[in-house]
Amino acid sequence: MSSFIHDDFMLSGKTASNLFHGSAESLPIIDYHCHLSPQQIAENIQFRDITQLWLVDGHAGDHYKWRAMRAAGVPEEYITGGTRSSWETFEKWAETMPFLMRNPLYHWSHLELSRVFGIDTILKPSTARGIFEECNAKLATPEFRGQSLIRKFNVEVVCTTDDPADDLRWHRQIAENPFGTKVLPTWRPDKAMAVESPEAFNSYLASLEEAAGMEIRTYSDLRDALQKRHDFFESMGCRLSDHGMDTFYAEDCTESEVEAVFAKIRAGKCLEKKEIAMYRSIFMHDQAVMDAESGWTQQFHVGVVRNNNTRLFESVGPDVGCDSIHDIDMALAGNRFFDRLASAGKLAKTILYCLNPKDNAVLTTMAYNFNDGTVPGKMQFGSGWWFMDQEVGMRRQIDTLSMLGLLSRFVGMLTDSRSFISYPRHEYFRRILCDVLGSDVDSGRIPAGEIADVERMVRGISYFNAKEYFGF
Amino acid sequence: MSSFIHDDFMLSGKTASNLFHGSAESLPIIDYHCHLSPQQIAENIQFRDITQLWLVDGHAGDHYKWRAMRAAGVPEEYITGGTRSSWETFEKWAETMPFLMRNPLYHWSHLELSRVFGIDTILKPSTARGIFEECNAKLATPEFRGQSLIRKFNVEVVCTTDDPADDLRWHRQIAENPFGTKVLPTWRPDKAMAVESPEAFNSYLASLEEAAGMEIRTYSDLRDALQKRHDFFESMGCRLSDHGMDTFYAEDCTESEVEAVFAKIRAGKCLEKKEIAMYRSIFMHDQAVMDAESGWTQQFHVGVVRNNNTRLFESVGPDVGCDSIHDIDMALAGNRFFDRLASAGKLAKTILYCLNPKDNAVLTTMAYNFNDGTVPGKMQFGSGWWFMDQEVGMRRQIDTLSMLGLLSRFVGMLTDSRSFISYPRHEYFRRILCDVLGSDVDSGRIPAGEIADVERMVRGISYFNAKEYFGF
Amino acid sequence: MSSFIHDDFMLSGKTASNLFHGSAESLPIIDYHCHLSPQQIAENIQFRDITQLWLVDGHAGDHYKWRAMRAAGVPEEYITGGTRSSWETFEKWAETMPFLMRNPLYHWSHLELSRVFGIDTILKPSTARGIFEECNAKLATPEFRGQSLIRKFNVEVVCTTDDPADDLRWHRQIAENPFGTKVLPTWRPDKAMAVESPEAFNSYLASLEEAAGMEIRTYSDLRDALQKRHDFFESMGCRLSDHGMDTFYAEDCTESEVEAVFAKIRAGKCLEKKEIAMYRSIFMHDQAVMDAESGWTQQFHVGVVRNNNTRLFESVGPDVGCDSIHDIDMALAGNRFFDRLASAGKLAKTILYCLNPKDNAVLTTMAYNFNDGTVPGKMQFGSGWWFMDQEVGMRRQIDTLSMLGLLSRFVGMLTDSRSFISYPRHEYFRRILCDVLGSDVDSGRIPAGEIADVERMVRGISYFNAKEYFGF
Repeated sequence: MSSFIHDDFMLSGKTASNLFHGSAESLPIIDYHCHLSPQQIAENIQFRDITQLWLVDGHAGDHYKWRAMRAAGVPEEYITGGTRSSWETFEKWAETMPFLMRNPLYHWSHLELSRVFGIDTILKPSTARGIFEECNAKLATPEFRGQSLIRKFNVEVVCTTDDPADDLRWHRQIAENPFGTKVLPTWRPDKAMAVESPEAFNSYLASLEEAAGMEIRTYSDLRDALQKRHDFFESMGCRLSDHGMDTFYAEDCTESEVEAVFAKIRAGKCLEKKEIAMYRSIFMHDQAVMDAESGWTQQFHVGVVRNNNTRLFESVGPDVGCDSIHDIDMALAGNRFFDRLASAGKLAKTILYCLNPKDNAVLTTMAYNFNDGTVPGKMQFGSGWWFMDQEVGMRRQIDTLSMLGLLSRFVGMLTDSRSFISYPRHEYFRRILCDVLGSDVDSGRIPAGEIADVERMVRGISYFNAKEYFGF
Repeated sequence: MSSFIHDDFMLSGKTASNLFHGSAESLPIIDYHCHLSPQQIAENIQFRDITQLWLVDGHAGDHYKWRAMRAAGVPEEYITGGTRSSWETFEKWAETMPFLMRNPLYHWSHLELSRVFGIDTILKPSTARGIFEECNAKLATPEFRGQSLIRKFNVEVVCTTDDPADDLRWHRQIAENPFGTKVLPTWRPDKAMAVESPEAFNSYLASLEEAAGMEIRTYSDLRDALQKRHDFFESMGCRLSDHGMDTFYAEDCTESEVEAVFAKIRAGKCLEKKEIAMYRSIFMHDQAVMDAESGWTQQFHVGVVRNNNTRLFESVGPDVGCDSIHDIDMALAGNRFFDRLASAGKLAKTILYCLNPKDNAVLTTMAYNFNDGTVPGKMQFGSGWWFMDQEVGMRRQIDTLSMLGLLSRFVGMLTDSRSFISYPRHEYFRRILCDVLGSDVDSGRIPAGEIADVERMVRGISYFNAKEYFGF
Repeated sequence: MSSFIHDDFMLSGKTASNLFHGSAESLPIIDYHCHLSPQQIAENIQFRDITQLWLVDGHAGDHYKWRAMRAAGVPEEYITGGTRSSWETFEKWAETMPFLMRNPLYHWSHLELSRVFGIDTILKPSTARGIFEECNAKLATPEFRGQSLIRKFNVEVVCTTDDPADDLRWHRQIAENPFGTKVLPTWRPDKAMAVESPEAFNSYLASLEEAAGMEIRTYSDLRDALQKRHDFFESMGCRLSDHGMDTFYAEDCTESEVEAVFAKIRAGKCLEKKEIAMYRSIFMHDQAVMDAESGWTQQFHVGVVRNNNTRLFESVGPDVGCDSIHDIDMALAGNRFFDRLASAGKLAKTILYCLNPKDNAVLTTMAYNFNDGTVPGKMQFGSGWWFMDQEVGMRRQIDTLSMLGLLSRFVGMLTDSRSFISYPRHEYFRRILCDVLGSDVDSGRIPAGEIADVERMVRGISYFNAKEYFGF
């Protein structure tokens, strides 16, 4: 029997196969949004074993796998408990695998085994020990340290996700010791927008004051401090911002109103709901203006409800697999938010991502309201995010973008991952993209005579669109 | 020409066919949620004719068919009017049938004719008289009485839907006169949550007082009375609760606040919107705690707007085909509701069903926030409900569950029906499930070498998962 | 290589092909909703060139194409700027085309080139000049004037979209000079509901006063004036109304309350949000009653957020490609609105269209709550609208309608277009419809023996249902 992950995996016809192997497969990766640890990259991490790499990395484990294991009936002690051996945790994961058919983890895991470790065996209880040992043996070699893993996948650029108060020391260290992949910071000022808790906010501002070398007594000070950090990020090669939000905010709020709100929270008082919305509105607007003035690309990730399980939040922490999809409204506030920027001539290149597939059409049509002919695909609908980063989600994203916009201008896939070995997801995406386009050629929806333009589209979405769009 | 409902109906390939015939077809049915009348089961109902059975059963007719007939231009007098003969009503239904292609009623009806009556003729005006007479002749025989119809489909367990004030006399009678299928009650306390109308609520509490043998002067009394009935239901074999709601409720509400709200409605006064939400929040929480303490499974059916047509509601009654899909928000309140239970260590096994397909992803990811490794699939997303109980709806439910969760742990299909002959819907579901999985094997998305695990998954979803999960 | 738009374009099997060519292709078109200019029809417009016809018609350009060009990076001066030559604008459009694969514009444009101009060449930079010249040469001939273009597509009826204050002079002129296609007005009273701006509203009422020949001092006057115009439209052959709204309104509002609200806006004062909702509720109810009393069909287009780009709105105007999909709630208010009409015995034939695909199921089930057996398909879910008027949107609309209602009673496609040459979209829809039904026959979901009923369904949806339903 041929291997599971074979040459034409996910490709349903000859045209799709030709597109993938001829135009997509060998192109470099621009991973313009991920959560890799700059420190782990700089230190060229050597993983203790496959369990650390796949399941319980100290920096941040794989919450997709944790969630699946809990649902499969695996006790928490094997997951985040830290009381079980690497083998015991891995064994539980291997026992879970056969129950994951049709879940993206089944494809991701076997793609990673195949592409990273050259293992084409199906992971299940009977093969677990052998795979565990083979992976561990390889992970002990220099070819499997962090930087080599990135290079193995021909990654041209990695954009990490960083706080404005971060000193970017690891980025500096990487820049001074290049290993063939550019590693750039991304500006993610979520904590400066998180005014729900005065205590956490004020504590954060203390670190920001230190980073910016200035006191932050007013909202205007905050803006100045952030501008200083924004300039610093720019000097370190940053070309992207990223914002995680439940939805968009576009309340009316004057300068003096935001100062009053700011003074209130600085005094340690809790804000009213309305005040929070006002703060977020003006804060996000100011952030967007900074990005526009720097020629950066701004990203918005909307539609998540986070940390829903208080028990696990308190015992294990945030981001442990207890986040889920929101159903909050987006259309009115989103359009108003971007309209204000467009009216002011301050609309940066923009990518919108949503977690709820019901918002795909809303965000795509929202984005296209503000394209202005200055940059191809200036404002666009981004790739299937998080829970939507799987075959059905990708096909929906591709279909929505195709039918309501310009698929050809799509800047394509990103990993959004904390893992050094999730790069095969780019291959997975490219296969699905080629299958969509190849099927359309085969069914006559795209004229076969125009295959050269289809190939150009595949090359663009796989690599060249991002290269031109972001300008790293 | 071969018959419409042939061996490989809905099965698109050899693998799908093998899965269905080899692993699904012959397994018993666990119908863990339906609306069959316990009295009709106990009395072993003999149906007057196919019109009574299919269209205008006194207990409750088939609102799917009524709705379709109205839309096809059939006057109400033939539908719920009660002034037309059985044949006249059946004839109108037969005239409607050819206009129902692609509607699930077309498949359901022919499956029922084939599987219940052995009739493989297409129902249409020219065949109506013959089918009418053949069905009626069979219905006059003992093999077509209620209990035989259930046994015919190898139904191991039936869970009816019952009010806490119900004395379950018919369940007792069935238990004392077993016919080969276990018939168990399900706890459905909707009326105790229905505080919109003080009159109806207080009248309901009177019957509950009688059933519980105690006065209900306070909310605390109500809780006690319900606990007594809950214990009684438990003693009668009940292992499931069920709640029909527009959405989830998780307002803050203290003990004294709920007592004040309760006193107000007991005094016959209408509640404010906010008070209704507070009452529902604490009531549902208390219900959920009871279920957790009893080891039951709780079911939530959310997202319906009921009885929208006042004219038909007043002339014919509730549940006559004038309900529709809601678009209310679910995510925030739902997560908060279940988080409180999980934090208190009182989260029962839980199944979430939604009527609006836009909520599939929201509910699936919500459910997976609270799986805790104690029971495989402890909190899960249930099968396509009501308007979604059709091919497109089932495929979406299967895809959502697959991509965002563990399809393999799914407890599978239920009928949710008032009819003694809707059991072929289990066959219909199993065919679609096998087609989904078989297609994935054929396309290489699931490795062909792992077919034994695919077969296990099919057997699990068809029967064994429910058997293990509910513990009847 | 055969042409792109060949005989079996979009048809995946022999059954689909037979259905299309045998039962759909040659039937006339009833275009019961479009935005053609009655003046341009009456004057039998001769287009200057293909750029005017396709891209920048003075009456109203093609905002789909504008939006696509902006996203492709074409500067506004080539789009709505009016400073570039016809050729320069057309050339930019041709450059955009290869980037539009999978967008409906790619299929629409080539269908139009093929069916209107007999050109089967793919439009792209290298073919642009030839196509430009060939089209322009043809457009200079009498066979390509406005009326001939309509006749070419065998259009039996065209319903334009008209304001109640319109004198319908062009409709009268067409009626007096018939050219083989009936051109009827549609009642679209949006401006009489637009109470957000007192200035615009009062200015509109002035024109309505003139048209109705009466003063409008009270809301009751407004109703009388509109009834007079409604009667006039009726006398001119109007049988349809149409309403563009964000969502439905069904607030409680007494006669005296609406008079107070009306007096306030007539005094030039801005209304509160609540007052606007009350006005809309009673206004829409009264409109619906007028339609019911006249035996008309009312259409509701819901779920759009308009004119989101203030900069383009101010520089170019409304409807320039900056509208997008709303995510507002529909279910509760919609059901209440139609229930009031049904209760009063004043529910007209009704078609519901939504822009957000998440509302498909909500609107379909809403519609079916109120079918009453008097007219087949009396209240129904309309065809894929605007952003949903493309293959994926049509298939979803067909699937939703099939699974939740009666596809067979569907009144089918409309163009909703400002263009004289968008009639091939009817062909496009019919091909997709036949492909859906043909595939179902081929897969055994519809019995092959019942093909005559499938053909009847195709003929009905393509032409006969609309003919019977609207009663022009």
